[in-house]
Formats: sequence, structure tokens, C-alpha cells
Amino acid sequence: MDKLHKISLSTGSRSQFLDITARVQEIISREKVKDGLALVWVPHTTAGLTINENADPDVVRDILASLDKRFPWDDGYGHSEGNSAAHIKSSLMGCQKTLIVQDGRLALGTWQGLYFCEFDGPRKREVWVKIVEG
Amino acid sequence: MDKLHKISLSTGSRSQFLDITARVQEIISREKVKDGLALVWVPHTTAGLTINENADPDVVRDILASLDKRFPWDDGYGHSEGNSAAHIKSSLMGCQKTLIVQDGRLALGTWQGLYFCEFDGPRKREVWVKIVEG
Amino acid sequence: MDKLHKISLSTGSRSQFLDITARVQEIISREKVKDGLALVWVPHTTAGLTINENADPDVVRDILASLDKRFPWDDGYGHSEGNSAAHIKSSLMGCQKTLIVQDGRLALGTWQGLYFCEFDGPRKREVWVKIVEG
Repeated sequence: MDKLHKISLSTGSRSQFLDITARVQEIISREKVKDGLALVWVPHTTAGLTINENADPDVVRDILASLDKRFPWDDGYGHSEGNSAAHIKSSLMGCQKTLIVQDGRLALGTWQGLYFCEFDGPRKREVWVKIVEG
Repeated sequence: MDKLHKISLSTGSRSQFLDITARVQEIISREKVKDGLALVWVPHTTAGLTINENADPDVVRDILASLDKRFPWDDGYGHSEGNSAAHIKSSLMGCQKTLIVQDGRLALGTWQGLYFCEFDGPRKREVWVKIVEG
Repeated sequence: MDKLHKISLSTGSRSQFLDITARVQEIISREKVKDGLALVWVPHTTAGLTINENADPDVVRDILASLDKRFPWDDGYGHSEGNSAAHIKSSLMGCQKTLIVQDGRLALGTWQGLYFCEFDGPRKREVWVKIVEG
């Protein structure tokens, strides 16, 4: 599985969580992976990844609002681009998550979805997926 | 190593860290894994995993208290179940950690333990472990 | 790839981010790894790892300052060593990151660097690297 798979995304606002679970599952299914690990990687420094509830959209709204409140957009930052809050939130959520592939499917809890976290949009973004069978 | 290993847990309070290092090591030992990676996964969205000090129990108490202070239980959330703070803390700690297996043992620093983080207990919980040798 | 690779570091202040990307790439190159995953692990409980911008040094300064502001050194902690803030920041950044190795190189976005996060220095520290080809 030496390929690096790429997913293209367009985000629509400054802060936004996009459920990309089905996009990653598509790659697993297309490549006929049975068992192993899928490393999902965001090659950007003002975005991230998280796994959280995919049922009530208020959950991701509450997470975004809480991060905005604790790590406000204006806070006496030194970085001249003015988007330091987005960099901080990127480090807090992290840019990489490793998922289990079991019997050809991502092994997830009932309410779990994998979210791309936009913290400085709207932008065109990429997500990379690397599979290791085992 | 195509199996998905499952650990069952019962938590005893709303917020609690449980050291599960020995439970994961048991699986490594039973499966006679020599070298590789062990992906530990929590299939819940109001719990997580972290690695921190296992010597003085005040350390995990301080971490829990600090998270509670910064991400309070009541904070004008929209999610009707009222447990948004637990979802936020789940995303901050993360639901997956990848550990090194070396010569049949989890490779950990002297003071490191792997903790299951309960943020909305008490509940019955699961932890999944996927091993990739390499 | 059954070896566990170790990097030695000396940090110079209480809170500091050190770019260790080249140190990890050196191991990949020396071991002639073509494709797979590199798990980077910090065996300490008052330090961590993060991936963020490597262009403007103000970015990592802003991240450190923001973490210090939200998780202050003195905050009524119980842990007698007095460094609970460092333990909390270790759990927030995490002590392990899994990176993609593709065609003999760490696969990183244009502005991404891998940082060792010192939260209780200055100290001598270690970073471990485990490679799984696949």
C-alpha cells in the first residue's frame, strides 16, 4: 500500500467541522483494504482533525464555540498574519489521527464521525490518507 | 494480527482517569507480539485517552480539575443532552493513541501511564486495541 | 524495522518548542525507509509534540503564550512538585504523533514542522522513533 491518497475539500466559513468519514471509507473500499491502520493527515497549520459525535449537529457547534471563547481571534498575538488562534486550535485538535480498519471498514463507535476542522477558512484544503495493512 | 481486541471498563464518577496500561500490556503479552504498534481506540464521544504521570495521583486530579475549570459543565451550550463539556474534553484529549511495542513490552517512559478519560460517567465503557507488527 | 531509535535533546528554558523534523528525517534516511509510518514518542510527562508552522517563529511563541495564559503555572494545584501546568499542557499537545513516510521522506505540508514541546525545562530530554514499513 505504497500510495498516498489525497482528498480535496472546500470549506465555507472561518470555523467549520466537515464530516469526512465517508470520504476515507471510500478509499479503504476502493483499495480493498481488509485490516490495518489508516493514518489521516491534514497538511495545513490552521486546520485539524477530530473524532466526535455525528448525530446532533449542536455538538460540533458547541465545540467550535467553546474553542473560540477560550482561544479568541484577538488576544495580543505577535504573528503578523493575525490568525494565531487558528494555529493554536490546530495544535489542540491535532493534524493527524490513526484509525482502525477491520474487515474492510473503519472501526468506529456508534456515534463517532471523523471531522476535518477548519479554523481559518473559507479555503481549499487537502487531507492525506496513508494505509498500512497488518 | 487481524483481530480487534476489546477491553471492558466501568467508571465510577462523572470525571475520572483510569490507568489501563496493564490491560493493554496483557493483550500484547497474550498475543505474543514482539515489535510494532498498538493503536488504542475509545469508541465513545464523551471519553478519551491520555498518557501522563502514574506516580502521584494528584497529577491526574489536577488535569481533571483544570479541564473542568476551563471547559465548565454549564456554558450556554446548544446540545440538548447537556453534556457538551464532555464532548469538548473528549476532542481535547483525543480518542486514539498509538503506542510502541518493543521486545514484547509497551515502550513507555518511567513515569508514563495510559489513562482512559471518563468525562460523562459513571458508565460502562469499551476500549479497542489494534496491533500492527512491523 | 525492529529497532527503537532515540534522539537526545537539551532544552534551554521552561517553555520552548524545538523543531525536530530534520532529526526524524535523518533516521528515515539512514535506515533507508521508503514507505510506511513513523511513530514519534516523548517518554516524558511534562513535555509533548505538536505539528505547526515552521516559517514565522511568532506562531510558536503565540501558541506557548496562549497555553500559559489559559493554563497558568499557579492555579491551586494539589501536585506537590508544583509543575501541574506542564503535565496539563503535555496532555493537551500529546506525547505521540504518527507521521507518513512516502518515497523516503516525511510527508509534510509546505509550512509544517514537527516540534518537541518543552513545558518544564530546561532539561535533558529524549524522543523515540519507531518505524513500521507498509
